[in-house]
Amino acid sequence: MKKSLGAKALVYPSPVWCIGSYDADGRPNVMTAAWAGICCSKPPAVTVALRKATYTYGNIMSTKAYTVSVPPQKYIREADYFGIASGKTVDKFEATGLTPVKAAKVNAPYVDEFPMVLECRLIHTLEIGLHTLFVGEILDVKVDDDILAENGLPDMMKLDPFLYTAENRTYHGVGDYVGKAYTNAKSF
Amino acid sequence: MKKSLGAKALVYPSPVWCIGSYDADGRPNVMTAAWAGICCSKPPAVTVALRKATYTYGNIMSTKAYTVSVPPQKYIREADYFGIASGKTVDKFEATGLTPVKAAKVNAPYVDEFPMVLECRLIHTLEIGLHTLFVGEILDVKVDDDILAENGLPDMMKLDPFLYTAENRTYHGVGDYVGKAYTNAKSF
Repeated sequence: MKKSLGAKALVYPSPVWCIGSYDADGRPNVMTAAWAGICCSKPPAVTVALRKATYTYGNIMSTKAYTVSVPPQKYIREADYFGIASGKTVDKFEATGLTPVKAAKVNAPYVDEFPMVLECRLIHTLEIGLHTLFVGEILDVKVDDDILAENGLPDMMKLDPFLYTAENRTYHGVGDYVGKAYTNAKSF
Repeated sequence: MKKSLGAKALVYPSPVWCIGSYDADGRPNVMTAAWAGICCSKPPAVTVALRKATYTYGNIMSTKAYTVSVPPQKYIREADYFGIASGKTVDKFEATGLTPVKAAKVNAPYVDEFPMVLECRLIHTLEIGLHTLFVGEILDVKVDDDILAENGLPDMMKLDPFLYTAENRTYHGVGDYVGKAYTNAKSF
């Protein structure tokens, strides 16, 4: 029996990604976002939705660039902090001891300790309401070589990312491999 | 040491959501999408990116409505099939035996067997390239009462959704609870 919960931004699961940007003085900032996802294959692109009140919003509007660093569970405490503290009042890299590295292709910093990083050039913004949607073209994907599988792609379990559950405000890990996609064409 | 993998739509993890729509003849269709995410809190909204070639693309352009049904692992084979077969040539509900139910608030069907459903009204489209981004305002969230936790929200482990890994084309389950968000404000 389905129960109506009303009009809410409530659906599982959401990724936990850390968005890197520089401010007007060239200081690196990073914030955690979960309202995000891949949005195009050609050009490769990702969305991230940000409130205007965030420091990152102004940074990206100005530099037209950002990075996405995927935090592993090992850094869950740091990633959670990145979603609470504001770059307006604190240097989050300095506070946590994590290392900002300038991206090669865009004017934005990524988190060196996080094993998977996207370098993104802002190509669209869309005003939705409380959040503005940023669409970034992915100019490069960088991955720590020790999490690469034999096929040359990142191993999900070695990356060990985690998920956000909307409204509940909790984090979950990623579970085991449960199947290969695009295999059931003739199942039915 | 970070290795550059080039410009790809490659980042983990992505959700696996099934998008329900009606065609011009009122026949229900459903397709699986992973290029998707929450994009706004007020109004609550989700994005899903679709290729123009999909049957769903034309349906949503015409009806301005869609649903998001979250498949549990129990239905991984059906959800995978929904991402391969096309509503142009087959009735995917009929083929799988799953049940289309007309949403209460929008002109689109959801998958009754899937425990979490969003009813969405199309509010924006954005051409990005191969994919078009659809932004849907969430008018209602419906959840099977047997997966609700004591706090009235869906229990992630009872929902038992799964994830897509880009490029690898594999599915992973969702893992255990690993922490509460917004708790580390004073950690650093």
